[in-house]
Amino acid sequence: MRPELIPDIVVGRLPRYLQTLHKMAREGEQTTSSQELGAELGISAAQIRKDLSFFGGFGKQGTGYSIAYLVEQLQEILKINQVWDIALVGAGNLGKAIAQYQGFANRGFRVVMIFDNDPAVVGTQVGKFTVQNSTEMVEAIRKVGVKIAMLTVPASAAQKVAETLVEAGIRAILNYSPVALNLPVQIQVEYIDPILQLQHMTYYLGA
Amino acid sequence: MRPELIPDIVVGRLPRYLQTLHKMAREGEQTTSSQELGAELGISAAQIRKDLSFFGGFGKQGTGYSIAYLVEQLQEILKINQVWDIALVGAGNLGKAIAQYQGFANRGFRVVMIFDNDPAVVGTQVGKFTVQNSTEMVEAIRKVGVKIAMLTVPASAAQKVAETLVEAGIRAILNYSPVALNLPVQIQVEYIDPILQLQHMTYYLGA
Repeated sequence: MRPELIPDIVVGRLPRYLQTLHKMAREGEQTTSSQELGAELGISAAQIRKDLSFFGGFGKQGTGYSIAYLVEQLQEILKINQVWDIALVGAGNLGKAIAQYQGFANRGFRVVMIFDNDPAVVGTQVGKFTVQNSTEMVEAIRKVGVKIAMLTVPASAAQKVAETLVEAGIRAILNYSPVALNLPVQIQVEYIDPILQLQHMTYYLGA
Repeated sequence: MRPELIPDIVVGRLPRYLQTLHKMAREGEQTTSSQELGAELGISAAQIRKDLSFFGGFGKQGTGYSIAYLVEQLQEILKINQVWDIALVGAGNLGKAIAQYQGFANRGFRVVMIFDNDPAVVGTQVGKFTVQNSTEMVEAIRKVGVKIAMLTVPASAAQKVAETLVEAGIRAILNYSPVALNLPVQIQVEYIDPILQLQHMTYYLGA
């Protein structure tokens, strides 16, 4: 099926399937079933079978899924059978923490450059990176051909920086700034805002 | 309608409505419409009206919504018309960044204690907090009656720490560790895993 015909909500579940399959593999399992996957993820077995059927199925009736094969297929579908370079913009506390996070590389991503516009921060070392001046951002990103950025700048700066990133050729932005971005529709944007998730949970808590 | 009868996916959208209403209020707007809210959020106006109708509506036909009134109602529904205390566990780079994040307080939350089990970290200062030993966690959380925790420990430690938090009376966990937690169903758990969101986006990127 053509990529644009798969519902986005289905695509959004694939990384979670992959995460659980990796965990099963680490625990020494070789095969799994839609029932077992569903139980781990809190998703019905029928939903999992339906989701995977969009991409051709991958399991045999009665024998379940080969974990190694399903991992390989999902990585190919999600295009993470390669390592994607990431440009990180905003070298505050959060940006520094992310730049030094060890968990990206073996899941398909690596931060390759970090930018800030604060003269006191530009030129400083963050892990193995030297923080570059935001004024060099467009040229540096174009040169390497980076397609993905993470944005950890203050909310007030986020929109303008995002527009500059798009101008530089960035096509997907993971936005940690608590503000919605208005960008061309072909640019992928995902948001990380812990407060939205906290507010979701407090709904269920007695006062 | 009784809280448990509202679909969780509806509840999950309310914080996003609130975020957008706050933005409109900052920009000086006094009223809005389901059309305008929908355009900002990429959600249909019909969906927004339907979501809000679960809680009684709040708008008058033809005159739209009073932003101040809708903010107040949503804050009450989400139980953030009070400030919730948060215990943060894991004082690594990410934990430190979160503990010092300025954006929580005016959105209903504040970190009030921070724990770690590393003797080199316990007793150090993170912003205005002294990192406490994880061995004191249960007693300290019970004493203050904290109900929400954020987990920024290594994946290998997350399940055990989460169980201890539940024992201490924690009822909602925002988990930054890249591992699914197995906890009693009445415990709210939300996950923050940037890699899941990055993998979702790469699906749409050409290789």
